Amino acid sequence: MEQNEALEIVKKQLTDHRFIHTLGVVETSIRLANKFGADPKKAETAAIFHDYAKFRPKDEMRQIVQNEGLPQDLLLYGSEVLHAPVGAFLVKKEVGIADPEILNAIYYHTTGKENMTILEKVIFLADYIEPNRQFPGVDAVRETAQQDLDQACLMAVKNTIGFLMKQNQKIYPLTFETYNGLLQEIKQKF
Amino acid sequence: MEQNEALEIVKKQLTDHRFIHTLGVVETSIRLANKFGADPKKAETAAIFHDYAKFRPKDEMRQIVQNEGLPQDLLLYGSEVLHAPVGAFLVKKEVGIADPEILNAIYYHTTGKENMTILEKVIFLADYIEPNRQFPGVDAVRETAQQDLDQACLMAVKNTIGFLMKQNQKIYPLTFETYNGLLQEIKQKF
Repeated sequence: MEQNEALEIVKKQLTDHRFIHTLGVVETSIRLANKFGADPKKAETAAIFHDYAKFRPKDEMRQIVQNEGLPQDLLLYGSEVLHAPVGAFLVKKEVGIADPEILNAIYYHTTGKENMTILEKVIFLADYIEPNRQFPGVDAVRETAQQDLDQACLMAVKNTIGFLMKQNQKIYPLTFETYNGLLQEIKQKF
Repeated sequence: MEQNEALEIVKKQLTDHRFIHTLGVVETSIRLANKFGADPKKAETAAIFHDYAKFRPKDEMRQIVQNEGLPQDLLLYGSEVLHAPVGAFLVKKEVGIADPEILNAIYYHTTGKENMTILEKVIFLADYIEPNRQFPGVDAVRETAQQDLDQACLMAVKNTIGFLMKQNQKIYPLTFETYNGLLQEIKQKF
């Protein structure tokens, strides 16, 4: 699928603000993919569709989780964690993208997971640092992302856990596994 | 067992500094037990023995985990998480305390867990706020502990997660379950 065609499809699913964010994720993830050795074409496609389900009604997302064999514990957490796995499901079903590497990068873009592929890390990180993102600590993560993909992902997940705790929001277990897993990967490199 | 006799036993296992901490936990946990409705005698015993295994050699603690049916994933985390479950085991074996409520309060005093009993919360919190503890945020937790056991435990576990992340230390999954579980309990009260 050409970039233009894909962007046309996803634009209809998003607000203008979220479409601009998506363009930022596309640009950033292609750059990160080239730098750290993921397939830039797959990164582009995953980035374009990563928020495909973001504005689906919560009830629809919950029904998909219930009916399509997604982990049922997703229903116990905030709706923020639903849109990524539901997005992977809908991008396959409605857009016809079947590449599991791309679908997994969409699935795990919010929480991460243990032992992510480079492509999964690229989308996870690009979603956090794309140029339109502005929150405390993001510049330090951008800087680290110039050199070290794992360290940058670790900083991002730490910030996310800290932010969610400040808000007294429940945290999906995969987010914690991402934290512990990245620490383990980084430790093993030295 | 009389308090004096129990303190004699545990004193031999601890440094002076850690024994003074233990006396603080005893005093605080009796106060919290009376305030929030746990058995103060059980709180006293659990507090006296909560750090019983603290200074056992790491190898001995690891062997006990391996040989005595404790969760094997304890071995993947820092030695700080070992002393509590190993302590529960040794307090039963060497001191002869068999009350599962007391042993569980010792077992979970570092990590907490989902759906703690009041006694477990009391020991978890007393270990954090006893008068000799001095770290950022502890006074706010002490203040909250005047009114609300769950909120104070939540503050303590949030501080602990934040502290461990700052140190880039892996975090045992039970600690995260404690965080999510307390949020859930607090939400259900309102």
